[in-house]
Amino acid sequence: MKDQNIITIKGFKASGVAAGIKASGKNDLALIYADQHCSAAAVFTKNKFPAASIIVSREHLQAEPESIRAIVVNSGNANACTGAEGIKNARLMAEQLAKNLNLRPSQVLIASTGVIGRPLPMDKVIAGINQAVPKLKGNGWLSAARAIMTTDTRPKLAQKIIPGPVQNISFLGMAKGAGMIHPRLATMLVFIITDAVVAHTALQSALQFAVDRSFHCLTIDGDTSTNDSVMLLARAPSTAAPEELITENSEKFLAFRDALVTVCVDLARQIAADGEGATKLVEIIVSGAHSYEDARAVASHIAHSLLVKTALFGNDPNWGRIVCAVGNTDALFDPQKVVVKIGVYTVFQHGVPCLKDMGLLTDYLKQNQQIEIKVELGAGTNEIRFWTCDISTRYVKINAHYHT
Amino acid sequence: MKDQNIITIKGFKASGVAAGIKASGKNDLALIYADQHCSAAAVFTKNKFPAASIIVSREHLQAEPESIRAIVVNSGNANACTGAEGIKNARLMAEQLAKNLNLRPSQVLIASTGVIGRPLPMDKVIAGINQAVPKLKGNGWLSAARAIMTTDTRPKLAQKIIPGPVQNISFLGMAKGAGMIHPRLATMLVFIITDAVVAHTALQSALQFAVDRSFHCLTIDGDTSTNDSVMLLARAPSTAAPEELITENSEKFLAFRDALVTVCVDLARQIAADGEGATKLVEIIVSGAHSYEDARAVASHIAHSLLVKTALFGNDPNWGRIVCAVGNTDALFDPQKVVVKIGVYTVFQHGVPCLKDMGLLTDYLKQNQQIEIKVELGAGTNEIRFWTCDISTRYVKINAHYHT
Repeated sequence: MKDQNIITIKGFKASGVAAGIKASGKNDLALIYADQHCSAAAVFTKNKFPAASIIVSREHLQAEPESIRAIVVNSGNANACTGAEGIKNARLMAEQLAKNLNLRPSQVLIASTGVIGRPLPMDKVIAGINQAVPKLKGNGWLSAARAIMTTDTRPKLAQKIIPGPVQNISFLGMAKGAGMIHPRLATMLVFIITDAVVAHTALQSALQFAVDRSFHCLTIDGDTSTNDSVMLLARAPSTAAPEELITENSEKFLAFRDALVTVCVDLARQIAADGEGATKLVEIIVSGAHSYEDARAVASHIAHSLLVKTALFGNDPNWGRIVCAVGNTDALFDPQKVVVKIGVYTVFQHGVPCLKDMGLLTDYLKQNQQIEIKVELGAGTNEIRFWTCDISTRYVKINAHYHT
Repeated sequence: MKDQNIITIKGFKASGVAAGIKASGKNDLALIYADQHCSAAAVFTKNKFPAASIIVSREHLQAEPESIRAIVVNSGNANACTGAEGIKNARLMAEQLAKNLNLRPSQVLIASTGVIGRPLPMDKVIAGINQAVPKLKGNGWLSAARAIMTTDTRPKLAQKIIPGPVQNISFLGMAKGAGMIHPRLATMLVFIITDAVVAHTALQSALQFAVDRSFHCLTIDGDTSTNDSVMLLARAPSTAAPEELITENSEKFLAFRDALVTVCVDLARQIAADGEGATKLVEIIVSGAHSYEDARAVASHIAHSLLVKTALFGNDPNWGRIVCAVGNTDALFDPQKVVVKIGVYTVFQHGVPCLKDMGLLTDYLKQNQQIEIKVELGAGTNEIRFWTCDISTRYVKINAHYHT
């Protein structure tokens, strides 16, 4: 998405600056600011060692579910596994931004990403916040998206508008993430804003639904970091007339939730495509599953298979590895009914291989940066879409030689 | 293990020949022969697309649990995903060996490993069997171990003797496996013989126990192939005096089972050390777990973490990745009580890093081909040992560019 195409969303501003946390001197501190109270929702990592930013953000969300006003994010340091000092530093970040913007610290959410187990350089962080506040502007999203990058090769933004008879509802999202588990450079952060007016409970419900169908269907290298966070801000009920309010019972709720899914899927695909060392975005579609959990298990097994991923890197039409991954799940199905397709080519059905000319498949793999794998289980009506990328020698190099 | 050190076990013979199934012309067909009836036990892959050899071996085990006499193994072709023709070919292998040795076909077990989805070249297999029978000899184990290799860089043999007042009990095992899931070169095969006299049920119980503590605590790249088999032959009750018989109630049973565990662990470690592209054998010891399942979950998460494995390859003292893997399990523990050690160095406790000089750790990683990772959960008394290897750029190359 080019800078000039980024929509602005009335009432929201962003900025990104270089605070000197990253040795490279690149942007490393981002702000998001709302000029009215926001309903906020978030999905955090389930890792048992959550970063300090997550511990503090949880408190603030609980205290101000419909009066959040800002988010501060730093990259270059995860502030994870940093004990009591880490918590104190996360609080200081919120306090410093609140002081600048005349807010309560609990109205600020916090996120961090970068190296684990090192203290945040608070002098730089404080100075960076002071520097970023006057730069807040309606079209500051690309700067902000750049400031949250770690091993990402490009900023990731997505937008979506639901046209309405009276007014449109707009969404704007930004994400970072290139290794799904990446504790040293921990890891996936997503921020989405919308000018819809939504109650906190409805917002949390819609976000969980969207995350389950997007970021929870995404794997690069198989796990969840200490810092993973998805945060969503909407206008709070207090900021608008009652007829604008979306609750879970509103007619507009499903359209709102679907649009949110679209934004999340867009960002999830961007993350997969920019996976560390990745050369291919892989979309896995499992259909005909007995249950949604079965569909997820099969898709997830394929997406996690190192051998499928290395074969894709090598343009090796190695369908046997896909069949084997399917066979390793506890999903209910009759092996004789399973059909596996790569692109438009059916490679396996009735328990035996069925593509005579493997050269067609090699060509498909060589010529496409987006690869589609379809598995039909013939055991029901449930379906899932899942995203991953290939695993290259560069992935190993990036992760073997990332020294302190 | 050098050839001259391989014990022979009275009553058992082996051979290995080059039947021409492998294009390289290397050994690719192995036989094991017992001159008396054997009790047999086996643990097979749980993959839903089992190879033809497994389907037929299951039938034969059920028909002749205490009268098995021989095993025939080919490498270079997995005979998996080959439909009805595959089953017919597996039966033909058993029939051809039975004809040569004057046995019933159901007294023969079968195993295959190699490329998936291609028909077995039966003319070569039949000729190979005919050629291998006259080569059967008491010390033919190294030839046999070589004939079951695929991407293995070396043959894998293990032996163990339980000294007894009247007579010793001997074990001899051989294994192949270099990618744990490797559907193209499917995959892990283990054959163990013993001159103990053991009832089939006791043998199966001991084997399951030993496999749970060895091959089920082993991962190279994360999954189970269509061909994985562990087979164990002992002398059948009919071949000996009643006082020699080991049942689950025998005094000797626990010693027998423990010795079997030792043999299986020995082979499992050899497989991990010879993992595709591996430069390091990694032993993970999780202790203080609330349950055995918790210990397994934690060890397995560390062993499967691509980021831990790539960091080990790069000699990067990246303890944060280990902590993160621990945190991603559902195991019960208090994060503040978790202690992580790499070698003799405590790197994480009380929720914070605790090794000042990371150079010590880098040196340890650089100087050792066997790396120990210890995690104490402080939540109970359960412990597990788990084995894996690092993941190198060579692993990706081996698996990306293995074309048809």
